[in-house]
Amino acid sequence: MTVVVGYVPGPIGEAALQAALAEADRRREPLLVVNVGQPDAANDPRFLDEGERIRLADRLLFEGAAFEIEQLVRGREAAEELVAEAERVDASLIVVGLRRRSPTGKLLFGSQAQRVLLDADRPVLAVKAPH
Amino acid sequence: MTVVVGYVPGPIGEAALQAALAEADRRREPLLVVNVGQPDAANDPRFLDEGERIRLADRLLFEGAAFEIEQLVRGREAAEELVAEAERVDASLIVVGLRRRSPTGKLLFGSQAQRVLLDADRPVLAVKAPH
Repeated sequence: MTVVVGYVPGPIGEAALQAALAEADRRREPLLVVNVGQPDAANDPRFLDEGERIRLADRLLFEGAAFEIEQLVRGREAAEELVAEAERVDASLIVVGLRRRSPTGKLLFGSQAQRVLLDADRPVLAVKAPH
Repeated sequence: MTVVVGYVPGPIGEAALQAALAEADRRREPLLVVNVGQPDAANDPRFLDEGERIRLADRLLFEGAAFEIEQLVRGREAAEELVAEAERVDASLIVVGLRRRSPTGKLLFGSQAQRVLLDADRPVLAVKAPH
């Protein structure tokens, strides 16, 4: 089995990645890092460019993780791709990053995270960025 | 640190409990089972009665878990109690059960689970009952 994590550059993606690394280590399972871009991916800040992908791979190698980085650009939403990949590899766990509530208390539930939580037929670990 | 799980009788609570037991074992941490009742708890099917509590404790003993069962009836909602208890014991993880989407695709996101996901300042593992 595999731990699957949805990765986007930034603090929320980092928090998800750190949690996923720890879970993969505890479970002694490989890590599948899924990064989804929209068809105009060159202009999509959520999609890793080549330099970002290389730095991410270096970090994961340094951590000693068994990992794969998968970048998908096929016009499907991130949540849909993440759930589909989790099915494909029979993931034991999906890790997603969640936004925090705003200081005014407004609900900020990322629609992609919410879709993964609703649609995934597997346990989902939801983590937030540190304060 | 501690793994905290929100427990209600039934398949969703069972799924959460099983996942929490596995996580507590992997993390070598004790398990805090939180069961919240409303002030008319005697008529609250989500609140464990004495027999249910004894059977639950027997099961957890049989599993070899280091655990505590905490039943709270103080007029606060389950999500609020769960998040507060997780803070109090400095939980490493909160485990909650999620309802599935209905067959018609209607969103069924339990409001208590959603509040825990939004409010908790810690990782939340969300699990569903088996089909």
